Amino acid sequence: MKLQVAVDRVSIEKAIYIIKEVEEYADIIEIGTSLIKDFGLESVRRIKKEFPNKIILADIKTVDEAEYEFEAVYNAGADIATVLGGASLETLRICRRVANKYKKDYLIDLIEVSKEKQESLKEFSDGIICVHLPSDNGKCGLEDLINSTIGSLKDFNRLAVAGGVSKDSISTIKKAKFHIAVVGGAITKAEDIKEAAKDFKAFMEDDK
Amino acid sequence: MKLQVAVDRVSIEKAIYIIKEVEEYADIIEIGTSLIKDFGLESVRRIKKEFPNKIILADIKTVDEAEYEFEAVYNAGADIATVLGGASLETLRICRRVANKYKKDYLIDLIEVSKEKQESLKEFSDGIICVHLPSDNGKCGLEDLINSTIGSLKDFNRLAVAGGVSKDSISTIKKAKFHIAVVGGAITKAEDIKEAAKDFKAFMEDDK
Repeated sequence: MKLQVAVDRVSIEKAIYIIKEVEEYADIIEIGTSLIKDFGLESVRRIKKEFPNKIILADIKTVDEAEYEFEAVYNAGADIATVLGGASLETLRICRRVANKYKKDYLIDLIEVSKEKQESLKEFSDGIICVHLPSDNGKCGLEDLINSTIGSLKDFNRLAVAGGVSKDSISTIKKAKFHIAVVGGAITKAEDIKEAAKDFKAFMEDDK
Repeated sequence: MKLQVAVDRVSIEKAIYIIKEVEEYADIIEIGTSLIKDFGLESVRRIKKEFPNKIILADIKTVDEAEYEFEAVYNAGADIATVLGGASLETLRICRRVANKYKKDYLIDLIEVSKEKQESLKEFSDGIICVHLPSDNGKCGLEDLINSTIGSLKDFNRLAVAGGVSKDSISTIKKAKFHIAVVGGAITKAEDIKEAAKDFKAFMEDDK
């Protein structure tokens, strides 16, 4: 299982500091939505320049204007761009087309996506699909969300999970055979960030 | 009816130039989603500083982390912030709470929101509600979208409409009693931007 570390709600300088701490253990570095809304694509450009060999995911959560947004973020250096599963199928198709054109990757975020809409996403099985518990819902219920969602995701080869992922939830995530676990505050707000990343990675690889 | 001019896909300098052209006729200036994703909150800060007396809407399309995002954008100078209607009810409630705390306004964007979810949005009738045709869907069908949506919006006092609004659609929009029409490219990409804004405003006020 891959560890994706999400960096958010800090300055770009602080983000770079955090990434330096975690880079040995993180497979994917996520530039969080708030970082992008706070600082724009400059956040992506500077972080990719600082870490050219890391896989950078830019959590732009596109819902419209997919061609413009995806081209801009890939040009800024992102390797993976995100689109909301709640976007129109046309928007999702444009995201896939631009990803293919740039030979980059895309992730579909299932935050608040209805069961019915989830079923219609099968055509995007080349993308990464992400089960996402909203932070605003109190970071509880991740296990329930996984159990109620996982059935409709069997067409996807690459499953990610995000939203309050802690060490306690890792065993559930492992059992459900997720490929990527997105961890934010549990690492980036730890007293010893590097140690926390190392711990998570070891815990995720345990019993593999 | 109020005219909201959406500025997008340009540099901040070009945005300021466009806003100077339209400010006499635009009731609300929209800093578009792409402008925010490209340049971050700096776009909001600089535009509010340049136009302190205009109502500035920041189209941040929040879908999670509402407190952080809404506080940040209001602090940057926005008078109206946007949230996706597809966000969780908890996220929407946080947006309303933060808007009330800052004595500012919020707009709920109905882009790709299901009928069922629309029905559950009645509790947010103090906000502005926006019927939004995605740009990615070819800018056609605005009239159909309005007709299929308007029935469930009767609890809202302030209705906005966005997505490929042209002079041709204004009469439909007037008939449906919208309060705000959002116009983007039809003004900002016109050869004479000022004249286009003046024309739209006159057309909207005609037969009032």
